[in-house]
Amino acid sequence: MPHRQSTGRGPNVVYTVSVRDHFMIAHSFRGEVFGPAQRLHGATYVVDVAFRRPELDPDGVVVDIGLAAGQLSQVLDGFRYRNLDEDPAFAGENTSTERLAREIFERLAMAIRRGALGEGARGLTSMRVTLRESHVARGSYEGDL
Amino acid sequence: MPHRQSTGRGPNVVYTVSVRDHFMIAHSFRGEVFGPAQRLHGATYVVDVAFRRPELDPDGVVVDIGLAAGQLSQVLDGFRYRNLDEDPAFAGENTSTERLAREIFERLAMAIRRGALGEGARGLTSMRVTLRESHVARGSYEGDL
Amino acid sequence: MPHRQSTGRGPNVVYTVSVRDHFMIAHSFRGEVFGPAQRLHGATYVVDVAFRRPELDPDGVVVDIGLAAGQLSQVLDGFRYRNLDEDPAFAGENTSTERLAREIFERLAMAIRRGALGEGARGLTSMRVTLRESHVARGSYEGDL
Amino acid sequence: MPHRQSTGRGPNVVYTVSVRDHFMIAHSFRGEVFGPAQRLHGATYVVDVAFRRPELDPDGVVVDIGLAAGQLSQVLDGFRYRNLDEDPAFAGENTSTERLAREIFERLAMAIRRGALGEGARGLTSMRVTLRESHVARGSYEGDL
Amino acid sequence: MPHRQSTGRGPNVVYTVSVRDHFMIAHSFRGEVFGPAQRLHGATYVVDVAFRRPELDPDGVVVDIGLAAGQLSQVLDGFRYRNLDEDPAFAGENTSTERLAREIFERLAMAIRRGALGEGARGLTSMRVTLRESHVARGSYEGDL
Amino acid sequence: MPHRQSTGRGPNVVYTVSVRDHFMIAHSFRGEVFGPAQRLHGATYVVDVAFRRPELDPDGVVVDIGLAAGQLSQVLDGFRYRNLDEDPAFAGENTSTERLAREIFERLAMAIRRGALGEGARGLTSMRVTLRESHVARGSYEGDL
Repeated sequence: MPHRQSTGRGPNVVYTVSVRDHFMIAHSFRGEVFGPAQRLHGATYVVDVAFRRPELDPDGVVVDIGLAAGQLSQVLDGFRYRNLDEDPAFAGENTSTERLAREIFERLAMAIRRGALGEGARGLTSMRVTLRESHVARGSYEGDL
Repeated sequence: MPHRQSTGRGPNVVYTVSVRDHFMIAHSFRGEVFGPAQRLHGATYVVDVAFRRPELDPDGVVVDIGLAAGQLSQVLDGFRYRNLDEDPAFAGENTSTERLAREIFERLAMAIRRGALGEGARGLTSMRVTLRESHVARGSYEGDL
Repeated sequence: MPHRQSTGRGPNVVYTVSVRDHFMIAHSFRGEVFGPAQRLHGATYVVDVAFRRPELDPDGVVVDIGLAAGQLSQVLDGFRYRNLDEDPAFAGENTSTERLAREIFERLAMAIRRGALGEGARGLTSMRVTLRESHVARGSYEGDL
Repeated sequence: MPHRQSTGRGPNVVYTVSVRDHFMIAHSFRGEVFGPAQRLHGATYVVDVAFRRPELDPDGVVVDIGLAAGQLSQVLDGFRYRNLDEDPAFAGENTSTERLAREIFERLAMAIRRGALGEGARGLTSMRVTLRESHVARGSYEGDL
Repeated sequence: MPHRQSTGRGPNVVYTVSVRDHFMIAHSFRGEVFGPAQRLHGATYVVDVAFRRPELDPDGVVVDIGLAAGQLSQVLDGFRYRNLDEDPAFAGENTSTERLAREIFERLAMAIRRGALGEGARGLTSMRVTLRESHVARGSYEGDL
Repeated sequence: MPHRQSTGRGPNVVYTVSVRDHFMIAHSFRGEVFGPAQRLHGATYVVDVAFRRPELDPDGVVVDIGLAAGQLSQVLDGFRYRNLDEDPAFAGENTSTERLAREIFERLAMAIRRGALGEGARGLTSMRVTLRESHVARGSYEGDL
């Protein structure tokens, strides 16, 4: 198996691997600031999840990309083709792009903690979830794991 | 003003100009083939409209791009932040991506006929409306004017 | 079920639906014109398949997009993670991007003929297969069905 | 060398290969319709040239992609980092995106005729030149060769 | 109104919202290192502004995206369709992509400080302005607010 | 020559310039976790290198973009159209996307140290190398210089 040799590199080193998927939902926003978006409408969100760590795992990767993509798809299944206004997880909250990014972050973080991305994934140190809602707007949530 | 000189070119010549905008809606599909998309959900559609003609107008363009973008935005205002299941224009029909593309085509074609894109736009000979619903799927409708 | 009403539209009308997938292969080219690409190397191909027809099917769509994406993935499985230099389907031929596009076209055309995309898909009249091999180059093959 | 075997395919078959490059220029437009674009400004144009033909050449490709990219770059050198208002090729004309697309088409067509893309390129039957001027607008010119 | 509940998350949490717009200008560079770009030419810049903060505002968003997009457009109006060589704001400086990114950053930062993005926007902690000048090059400027 | 005046800006300021190129290789992975990717296959990698620093150089830029792009191309020449399984630089290691990103980072860092990007480039403080292997996956490596 590959062996990660030490290299003469500077500090603040980070490796990242990102996978992409998408989901489509209906929702509405509460608050005058949202104007016509207070009406029931919907969105396609193209989701990029970036997994980060300072050292590669014994296979020479950040994370098993197949497990990562599969787990992301499974998390998104919880939202696909749904009206988020009826989802108790968001009761009393606006399902803004950035709020949804945090929800996906937290569900993936939980999956990582319970080992769903493999033992190697326990070495992940941070993650960023980005949702593109159109060709001109996107939101994201990132944090340590 | 610019004068379009004749050039020694072959047949089947076409000039195209495209403008992009987007809109977000809620809807659902009827038919078992649609699976979970039979539930109320939604989508962001990134719309590209291509205007086509064999000769440029006296200003040396296919169409006044400002008028074209403005008219597209106005047509999309008829759909923005709405639940298409309640729109009488689509009563008894599925608002598939390709069906929506045709609706936008027809509304723009009408606007062109009534002069909303300027006199020069009467020289347009065909048009294509493309809707991207995600990073992996899109639909379009095109035809002569 | 949706009913497609006739509309006062011009000739040469076409509806299109496109789906995207990708595959990664190794290969080499024969011919001095290919320079260093005569060595064994590889490529990622991002594939867009556009299905076209002049009328929508009874469900109001060009094709069942789930079946289309599934069938494309199955066709690409025949190439994924392989060395095309060893594939008898291309014996004596260069597996150029445009040649691969034709191969995928023909395998999908066969699948359509044998009903793998549903009965409605028999109304498809043409198809285009596009392979992006980088951010600056792509090849495609299109034709009637 | 690869031999192109005949296949049982339908009519209207076309192979395409596209290459991408870009150039940056200054210019201004004449005509009230252009509003503030009548002032001296500029643009980046990302150029895609699609070469088309119904049969592959003896090497199994549409065109030698290296020669095609090199010739496109050479044509764009005629515009790079220039003020098009001072270019006699466009005297009395607006250098609209679609007009520039035609100019590049014609210069490439001339290069093909004089053999700059190789003997095989004489089998090219049509070409399309697309210029993206922003993330929301583009123009193109296409025609037979 | 939505209430942001505390969640068991790690440190270094950041929410981001980005909006996109573009502008087109003429300019030239001084310095031999710039080669032909010392001539008067121009560029399209596609601008992405990322607004960042560790907590959402009372509406559950990073910033009122309508106000943010409107303010960005207003800042870009100061550059649109202009020859930056004549802009006193850049006297004696090269208007490189990265320098322009800083200028837009500073003008937006001033707008935020004077409340143009709403009271909630005072919680923004950092910002990044990215300018894409072509499909292969971009520059950005980021910093705390 | 341009002079960089001090501005009243907050801390943690960073300027970035990015350039893009690509390369195509063959390789295989060792480890059951890689499934069919254990077979000899290949990939196109679209590479973005972001150069970062807190102050611009005397020319008002992060780095001479021509030298940067040229040096990146030269580093990628070491990989182009090769079978990485035979490259001693990766003996006993998997050439994962993230591992390749580090290799390119280290070769560019060495080039910067020996002055290949000009004297001004010694002010660069960090760098990120991102490799897109498809429309849905990418890997990167970043660190201080």
